[in-house]
Amino acid sequence: MSSHSPAPRPTTAYAVPASSAALLTDHYELTMVQAALRSGAASRRCVFETFARRLPDGRRYGVVAGTGRLLEAIERFRFGDEEIAALRAADVVDADTLDFLAGYRFQGDIWGYAEGEAYFPGSPVLVVESDFAHGVVLETLVLSILNHDSAVASAASRMTGAAGTRPCIEMGSRRTHEEAAVAAARAAYIAGFATTSNLEAGRRWGVPTAGTAAHAFTLLHDDEREAFTAQVEALGVGTTLLVDTYDVPRAVEIAVEVAGTDLGAVRLDSGDLLVQAHEVREQLDALGATGTRIVVTSDLDEFAIAGLAAGPVDAYGVGTQLVTGSGAPTAGMVYKLVARTDDSGEMVGVAKASKDKTSVGGRKFALRRRNERGTAEAEIIGIGEAPADDGDDRALLVDLVRDGEVVGGEHVALAAARERHEASMAELPRSAHQLSRGEPAIPTTYL
Amino acid sequence: MSSHSPAPRPTTAYAVPASSAALLTDHYELTMVQAALRSGAASRRCVFETFARRLPDGRRYGVVAGTGRLLEAIERFRFGDEEIAALRAADVVDADTLDFLAGYRFQGDIWGYAEGEAYFPGSPVLVVESDFAHGVVLETLVLSILNHDSAVASAASRMTGAAGTRPCIEMGSRRTHEEAAVAAARAAYIAGFATTSNLEAGRRWGVPTAGTAAHAFTLLHDDEREAFTAQVEALGVGTTLLVDTYDVPRAVEIAVEVAGTDLGAVRLDSGDLLVQAHEVREQLDALGATGTRIVVTSDLDEFAIAGLAAGPVDAYGVGTQLVTGSGAPTAGMVYKLVARTDDSGEMVGVAKASKDKTSVGGRKFALRRRNERGTAEAEIIGIGEAPADDGDDRALLVDLVRDGEVVGGEHVALAAARERHEASMAELPRSAHQLSRGEPAIPTTYL
Repeated sequence: MSSHSPAPRPTTAYAVPASSAALLTDHYELTMVQAALRSGAASRRCVFETFARRLPDGRRYGVVAGTGRLLEAIERFRFGDEEIAALRAADVVDADTLDFLAGYRFQGDIWGYAEGEAYFPGSPVLVVESDFAHGVVLETLVLSILNHDSAVASAASRMTGAAGTRPCIEMGSRRTHEEAAVAAARAAYIAGFATTSNLEAGRRWGVPTAGTAAHAFTLLHDDEREAFTAQVEALGVGTTLLVDTYDVPRAVEIAVEVAGTDLGAVRLDSGDLLVQAHEVREQLDALGATGTRIVVTSDLDEFAIAGLAAGPVDAYGVGTQLVTGSGAPTAGMVYKLVARTDDSGEMVGVAKASKDKTSVGGRKFALRRRNERGTAEAEIIGIGEAPADDGDDRALLVDLVRDGEVVGGEHVALAAARERHEASMAELPRSAHQLSRGEPAIPTTYL
Repeated sequence: MSSHSPAPRPTTAYAVPASSAALLTDHYELTMVQAALRSGAASRRCVFETFARRLPDGRRYGVVAGTGRLLEAIERFRFGDEEIAALRAADVVDADTLDFLAGYRFQGDIWGYAEGEAYFPGSPVLVVESDFAHGVVLETLVLSILNHDSAVASAASRMTGAAGTRPCIEMGSRRTHEEAAVAAARAAYIAGFATTSNLEAGRRWGVPTAGTAAHAFTLLHDDEREAFTAQVEALGVGTTLLVDTYDVPRAVEIAVEVAGTDLGAVRLDSGDLLVQAHEVREQLDALGATGTRIVVTSDLDEFAIAGLAAGPVDAYGVGTQLVTGSGAPTAGMVYKLVARTDDSGEMVGVAKASKDKTSVGGRKFALRRRNERGTAEAEIIGIGEAPADDGDDRALLVDLVRDGEVVGGEHVALAAARERHEASMAELPRSAHQLSRGEPAIPTTYL
């Protein structure tokens, strides 16, 4: 870490996000390329594997997400004039390396778990094969995207599991980085969330968006009746009225007076949600608004959602705990060189040898072993060729990139990923869906 | 939350981040604008205040960061043709509201704490004054940026405090969203980190970048000597050699043989860092490499850094715990309407009245009260005019935007923010810098 580069002055006082993804990369990836170009080892064929050594403490499974975003980002992983100029000005690498980078375009192969799939400790969720120089520079980007999106999807999956058939609404944008928010909405949708508050996730990814009003809207008006009237006039009686700004029973009364018994929903955002949901349901029913739904939205996580299962709640809005991974804000995946050619061109497995942070060398296959009822029993990982399929094993690695071209679009399409998540969840043993802390739902077995 | 919009199909299979920041916004901000335009309340003058109700559990202070990024984002908060088309296609708001948004340009005033400043519960870190429609739509973006960047800066500040004069290196890009990583590097730099691994933070913000090699580089070569030789030939003897791939003492021996006693540094990334640091220091000294530094980099947080204070460590590399806020990944700030005009044009304080989530109505001032030795004693917050300065109070709110124009560039410039953080830390009582859980270092007093 000694080669501090005096960074270049930013070209403008405030620069916008780069359309190139190439500099979303750690400095040392490029110095390694420089050293490997010099030694000649840059052209050795390599296999890099992305996996989590363990699940977050007590979790029973993880959910792969971000693969679609990653494939898109790899397509715009190009060192253009601006990127090269920045690297040159900061003296990050030498001229030969800059020449290599200017012509960089990923030319290798990538396999991975399809998006929405469950994963377990050691699952090779992404496998990159290329020469060293082309593969190593993708490390940071691969991990940034998969670690973030999988952390959110893994938390989201527990939430939608706890919510059962009741819809979950993603509304955490304000509690995470503004671009992470867009990715979080996408990951949550894959893991079964119904809608998001994030408009850019709607534009960019087609995630359905939803939302009506905050306390500010009520406080803006002289009283609650005026605010509710304005909202219903503008958004229709099907809207959701927020009823906890002053006094909940009084607000519910006004809401039904203003909107009538066809009022779409009321929202509770503070206090004891279970007690209030029962009281509000009784009140709504007594007022004849039997179809008016109750949405709750106050600091929910999967445990709070489960705790409200017995209450008359129709939808859950989840924010902070979703976008921060409900206690596990990163999936902790690593990107490791597991095999490379030697001077004779033979592929040999490699692995760090020290006591902790070990990995298993060699190119892997991965299967989900299922019993005769179709329930997952083990994550089977091995070196070399997968054993002949006996019909109960499901191959997990799919083709994503071949010779630098994206070929696996169907494995990362959003709607397909959402369906895959649902199917993958249905296949796991019942114990996977316990919220309590425990071991992974199925063991990882190395053949 | 009932108005689900069928989101538009994304226009391309993979869209790049938008140059407009306008859709990094919750759906309900725009439906509130629609309803307020209809009721006429949209033109009421409003004061929105951004503050944290509490610090993360046990923290003694927070650090404001992100303000500079926010001012930049507000300048590109424009609903262009693409954004309007997306909102129309998804039927988010009506035609009148789209017309308003198409002409949107923030025209109000913004005050805030200067970047790098310490904050406490209730500190009004950002105050927005404008009509309702212009102010409410900024809520999501304001919170996304300040909550993320302040969470990282607050954690980073504890780490640099624990590290004392030893430099901290930010290397967490791989454990957070790829754009959050760039912002995290910036926030960490404000809070005293020396360098970052993130190349885009170098290009975009001028943060110094650093890095040399990973385990993959050693594993790529046939043995450690070959790898070290390649690295030293490419990067010079001042480089940092990673010595824990196989056997640390053997690697240190080879490192000094290859690079000589002028070797810049060795890096340890696994095992018992304190024990190893002592052993490696002894070995380096015995080999004559008395100037070779020791960099440690394995899952560090502020507590691990403090635990290594007695060891011969020269620099700390921090990743996961930095970018995830060391247990507090969001600062938990809220953006609340605290005052608005009534029909007579008089400004009146407003606040939610229910039991939890209370706020204090009215436009605030904020002072840091200091004793005669210059040590901070209280965060003084009040409504209306600040009391006459007796020389020991320091005003905390600075002008950032006036009539829609950024006027406070000097308060958010990166180098200035870094100096301000250092000065703000020096002013706090010693108890602020204890790592143990406790109360805020100074009380918040409402006048």
